[in-house]
Amino acid sequence: MFDQPIERMTIIGTGLLGASAALALRRAGFAGSITGVARRRETLHAAQHIGAIDTGTSNAAEACADADLVLIATPVGTAIRLLAELRDGLMPTAIVTDVGSTKRTIVEAAATLRQPGRFVGAHPMAGAETSGPQAARADLFEGRPVIVTPTHDTDPACLKLVETMWRSVGMQLVRLSPEQHDTAVAQVSHLPHVVSAALMLIAADSGRLNVASTGLASTTRLAAGETEMWADILTDNAPAVTAALDEASHRLSVVREMIHAGDRAALVNWLEAARDERQRWAGRPESTQ
Amino acid sequence: MFDQPIERMTIIGTGLLGASAALALRRAGFAGSITGVARRRETLHAAQHIGAIDTGTSNAAEACADADLVLIATPVGTAIRLLAELRDGLMPTAIVTDVGSTKRTIVEAAATLRQPGRFVGAHPMAGAETSGPQAARADLFEGRPVIVTPTHDTDPACLKLVETMWRSVGMQLVRLSPEQHDTAVAQVSHLPHVVSAALMLIAADSGRLNVASTGLASTTRLAAGETEMWADILTDNAPAVTAALDEASHRLSVVREMIHAGDRAALVNWLEAARDERQRWAGRPESTQ
Repeated sequence: MFDQPIERMTIIGTGLLGASAALALRRAGFAGSITGVARRRETLHAAQHIGAIDTGTSNAAEACADADLVLIATPVGTAIRLLAELRDGLMPTAIVTDVGSTKRTIVEAAATLRQPGRFVGAHPMAGAETSGPQAARADLFEGRPVIVTPTHDTDPACLKLVETMWRSVGMQLVRLSPEQHDTAVAQVSHLPHVVSAALMLIAADSGRLNVASTGLASTTRLAAGETEMWADILTDNAPAVTAALDEASHRLSVVREMIHAGDRAALVNWLEAARDERQRWAGRPESTQ
Repeated sequence: MFDQPIERMTIIGTGLLGASAALALRRAGFAGSITGVARRRETLHAAQHIGAIDTGTSNAAEACADADLVLIATPVGTAIRLLAELRDGLMPTAIVTDVGSTKRTIVEAAATLRQPGRFVGAHPMAGAETSGPQAARADLFEGRPVIVTPTHDTDPACLKLVETMWRSVGMQLVRLSPEQHDTAVAQVSHLPHVVSAALMLIAADSGRLNVASTGLASTTRLAAGETEMWADILTDNAPAVTAALDEASHRLSVVREMIHAGDRAALVNWLEAARDERQRWAGRPESTQ
């Protein structure tokens, strides 16, 4: 699977993403040991029960001391704290990567590692409304994009290994800088999340949910997501998210003026541009739910 | 089925809604004749082919002259023009109803009929991304809400008949005034449509659709909808839609400030309120896609 020996892998955070990565790597032929790290014993038991990890512990430092590959699959805030903790406790040959939803702050935090070049920031764009190892699936990553965010310091062999890993579980590789990543996900993921929650609040406060239908259901599906994790993502990526919100406000004020002025021709053009983009995009496998 | 004899029904507009209504009423036991009206011969042929209508014509006045019940299933703008055309050509006992997505302007237009009290405004909240009689389904209305918008002039027997009709095909009845209807649908349906299109334009212009995933797919599903019909709806309901857009801008500016200020606690509260509303609502049958 890898062109350098990876005998011991440690996955910190054995929730949906961490446990799914373990299952997917197993299925792709990874033959080394997998140690799971989680705070809660039940999480570790569940991950062990489904065959995602061989052993489990709540001690991240201990679990990483002899690891060839460390995959940090925690929320971004935790990942940043972990990188500081692991600073002196990794083998010089260890490769460290993550799955964080934002990349600028974590890549900055990784720069303080003893071997900063051996950290490779990554963001597999896969998930579900469910969470925890119980929801883990070996096919979670198939056909989905993974964004890898190397810097000029990144060791090419480490980058190659991380890219090989995600490709082996069916992901489509996209390389961006950490800043490009954060701007892109603010526009295509974080903004839709915030807007989805706002639409839900407006609909609920209208007192008319009894006349709402499938249109509201799909636009507000994201509003059901985990709130703590999303608060972390949105505050961590504040500059790009506020810029995306400003763009949304601007777009909405433009279309508001068309509607207010009764400028039907301009409105049709605007709706057609959106429809055409949606239909063009809908041909892609990752745009289906 | 009805507690007064309806021998001849005319459906103007045999697209998805009109043809589905015919199929659903047939299945519910309606035994009278159904005449379909459409401009295009192929539309009439298709509606006849699937057994939705008995006969078809492009002449609305002729088809309505001896009708006991007229169902106008066209876009709102067309419906308003038709009401003016039909003014003098209906039997004094005819009942007229519609399926329009906005209600204030059409109810106003119906006030000029010779028997304005025999018009009953209605809005079955059912639809699909598909259109035309080819997409018609007898179960399109099942379990969905229908909003009926009587005024103080509405004849109670006519109101009862229209309510019986939609209930017989499985719809859940909600009575609102035309103004309440327009405000409600602006908040739970028209606003989400506009926002969905705006999100699609932002994502497309970002040049990063290759990293977008299921979250963007569900929030932008509505953007694929028919553009001419939606331009009519949005301009017809301009006052309520612009008010809803103003509320959305306000909500987004509030959450923007939380994110900008790094006020994580406020943000968590805000996301939790939206999540709780979404989860409470998700238990209802009409909220599933």
